[in-house]
Amino acid sequence: MSAFQQRITLSEAEVIWQRSREAGLLSDRTRSLLVHDLDRMRSRIAILQEVFPSHTLHALAIKANPLVEILREAVNVGAGLEAASIEEAHLALAAECPAERIVFDSPAKTMEEIAEALELGIVLNADNFAELRRIDQLIKQISTRTTLIGLRINPEVGAGTISHTSVGQAGSKFGAPLSTTRSEIIGAFRRYDWLNGVHVHVGSQGCSLDLLARAASRIDELRRELEGTTGRPLAFVDIGGGLPTLYREQQSAPTPQEYVTRLKQEAPELMSSDRLLITEFGRAIQAGCGVALSRVEFVRPEQRMAVIHLGADFLLRPVYRPEDWFHEFFVLDAQGRRKSGTLAPLTITGPLCFSGDIIARDVILPPVDEGDWIVIRDTGAYTLGMWSHHCSRSIPGVVGYDATSPRQVRLLRAAETASDVVRFWSGPRPADVDK
Amino acid sequence: MSAFQQRITLSEAEVIWQRSREAGLLSDRTRSLLVHDLDRMRSRIAILQEVFPSHTLHALAIKANPLVEILREAVNVGAGLEAASIEEAHLALAAECPAERIVFDSPAKTMEEIAEALELGIVLNADNFAELRRIDQLIKQISTRTTLIGLRINPEVGAGTISHTSVGQAGSKFGAPLSTTRSEIIGAFRRYDWLNGVHVHVGSQGCSLDLLARAASRIDELRRELEGTTGRPLAFVDIGGGLPTLYREQQSAPTPQEYVTRLKQEAPELMSSDRLLITEFGRAIQAGCGVALSRVEFVRPEQRMAVIHLGADFLLRPVYRPEDWFHEFFVLDAQGRRKSGTLAPLTITGPLCFSGDIIARDVILPPVDEGDWIVIRDTGAYTLGMWSHHCSRSIPGVVGYDATSPRQVRLLRAAETASDVVRFWSGPRPADVDK
Repeated sequence: MSAFQQRITLSEAEVIWQRSREAGLLSDRTRSLLVHDLDRMRSRIAILQEVFPSHTLHALAIKANPLVEILREAVNVGAGLEAASIEEAHLALAAECPAERIVFDSPAKTMEEIAEALELGIVLNADNFAELRRIDQLIKQISTRTTLIGLRINPEVGAGTISHTSVGQAGSKFGAPLSTTRSEIIGAFRRYDWLNGVHVHVGSQGCSLDLLARAASRIDELRRELEGTTGRPLAFVDIGGGLPTLYREQQSAPTPQEYVTRLKQEAPELMSSDRLLITEFGRAIQAGCGVALSRVEFVRPEQRMAVIHLGADFLLRPVYRPEDWFHEFFVLDAQGRRKSGTLAPLTITGPLCFSGDIIARDVILPPVDEGDWIVIRDTGAYTLGMWSHHCSRSIPGVVGYDATSPRQVRLLRAAETASDVVRFWSGPRPADVDK
Repeated sequence: MSAFQQRITLSEAEVIWQRSREAGLLSDRTRSLLVHDLDRMRSRIAILQEVFPSHTLHALAIKANPLVEILREAVNVGAGLEAASIEEAHLALAAECPAERIVFDSPAKTMEEIAEALELGIVLNADNFAELRRIDQLIKQISTRTTLIGLRINPEVGAGTISHTSVGQAGSKFGAPLSTTRSEIIGAFRRYDWLNGVHVHVGSQGCSLDLLARAASRIDELRRELEGTTGRPLAFVDIGGGLPTLYREQQSAPTPQEYVTRLKQEAPELMSSDRLLITEFGRAIQAGCGVALSRVEFVRPEQRMAVIHLGADFLLRPVYRPEDWFHEFFVLDAQGRRKSGTLAPLTITGPLCFSGDIIARDVILPPVDEGDWIVIRDTGAYTLGMWSHHCSRSIPGVVGYDATSPRQVRLLRAAETASDVVRFWSGPRPADVDK
């Protein structure tokens, strides 16, 4: 297994538990604690930087994990950030990401959002032709600092195995479909001299290297055609997406090195020129950097069931689409040490008041008791960032683990209190009423 | 159709749009606005109060819609509130609900949460036997103001048609299963003299009147048996759940009057005595009181697709489980007037950056253009309350509509700003760091 894919082990989970305990961030009263391994994240980014050409901007998908302190760490080692909403662009700025390393993708940008992005100097990928017309109108009106503007192309290379997150099939809601709108695409690049990039994104989880490479090849072919027709070189190609993420010990997935080797075969000019290349990794970087610790509140022995404090609020997709999403688990005892004993199947349920709040069925684990801790692996992406307020439970604290720093653990986001929750659902503040 | 089931019509949606516009709560720049019809909610609560016996506490499920200002309106007309978490109990207190009208149900109550509830004097429904042992331990230690404590029973009457929200089947994660633990249940009522209520909840949406009535009948039968065995009367029976909610114009569903008639047949003593009866309506009260207005940002004519500003963040279940959940739609033009023209199928997609963010496929609507408003019906329950932060888009403002008040519209929750979103995902405040 590549160093890029190494996940947090049981031994490391024990260390994380102990360090969090010693730092006073975890007690017998803590319901759950979320952990992000910052050093691991930095290493994974470094691997991307090493294997991709030096002219590559790795814009991490903010939606995978939007915590400002996590984004800041990524920015500090040279990553860019990909914003799926104008709010995410503001998260990137809060993390002190330079505007030219922020890439703004959204299929629903308003006039005001586009104007703001242009003024800020953020890289913009238009989703469709109507958006190009808006950009053109704005560029004539406002002071634009943005120099990189691309168009999202749907290469129609087919869907991956997870239909809910695949975006490269025909009829997708994203991008200009290459087969049916090729002449419109070419027309747009002729008409708009500020349009100087192409963007493609076919999804990552459930997508094969074949699919990813085919998309890159098609987009580079289109790039050559556009340059030939317009007589001006494009400034960037954004190949989007990332690589599938390992969620099971027994699985294998392509490494960044294998991806790059394949890209060099299928789209050699993309990799060899010094034209800016943009990637948008998210899950593949972040998922394996996270674990969640949640205390076992009750065990229902007759049903081989354990109730913990994270459910569909945190693990939305594994609960609502268990056919597509999956996590592995460890068990620690009340002192944070690994449990032993006869392995048996256990159903792990969340704390929410609906019957479907079941995280996993028949997980094979050592005996689990009240007060033990369930460790959920690979929770660094698309978990906290998709937090759902169902039942209004407070969001757990988030700890950054950093084996290389003297303190090793530090708080990245404080646990919510009941007062925070009341404030969240309360009426307008007095100042708002006057507006 | 019963007055209880009347939904917000197209004409009312036009009025709501106009009033919101006049009040400055909706502009051409507004992405979405959520609306709750407070007068309709009060009318529905009044119907429950009218058809149920006077000794009934209608504890509205907070999780259906946790906005404090909405809860406050319900409390003002005599409703109680059902809390699925200790945080929800705090929301009830913030809405000035008297403690004795707050019912705390959760399958994962911690020692600290139980202690807090007992001290506050909140009605408590224990989920399982282990929780009863905790309550017993605490009652001996702390000063308890709570006088009503029940045990949740799983009557095992079978599941409704929506497995994800049905809770009365065998093997459910909730309650003490009646068939296999009957003697333990009886033992608990003998042992704990503070245990004086029974609670049952089989779900509401997708559950027939037969199923609901059978559950009530079984629980009342158990109540008689418990009273016979222990020689002391129970103080309350909580029949939980509610009634199915209409999401389609052509559907029909039982009315509260029909429900009560049926309960009087199947569980006559429950309805005739002056023992406290508790209900936990949520969806049936709140869903039809809400509409969401969302501006059409783009139309993709070749795909018969419209992109609006609400997606899986707001309509989590319709997006992730479209086989179970459904909404109807209206279209208003940019001036808030109903659209006309040839009806045709349209796919309505949300703004989030994943392919599955599709709210509804092939909805039959008049022609839809950029700048129009899509009105989503029946969004008053399990929408905003389950808000998911995916892509970190700001939460729209929520307006209370009240046809009987002079102002007609008022802000119940201000729209989030980009700064609010940055604050939400930011690190601990300085005060927390010192802890």
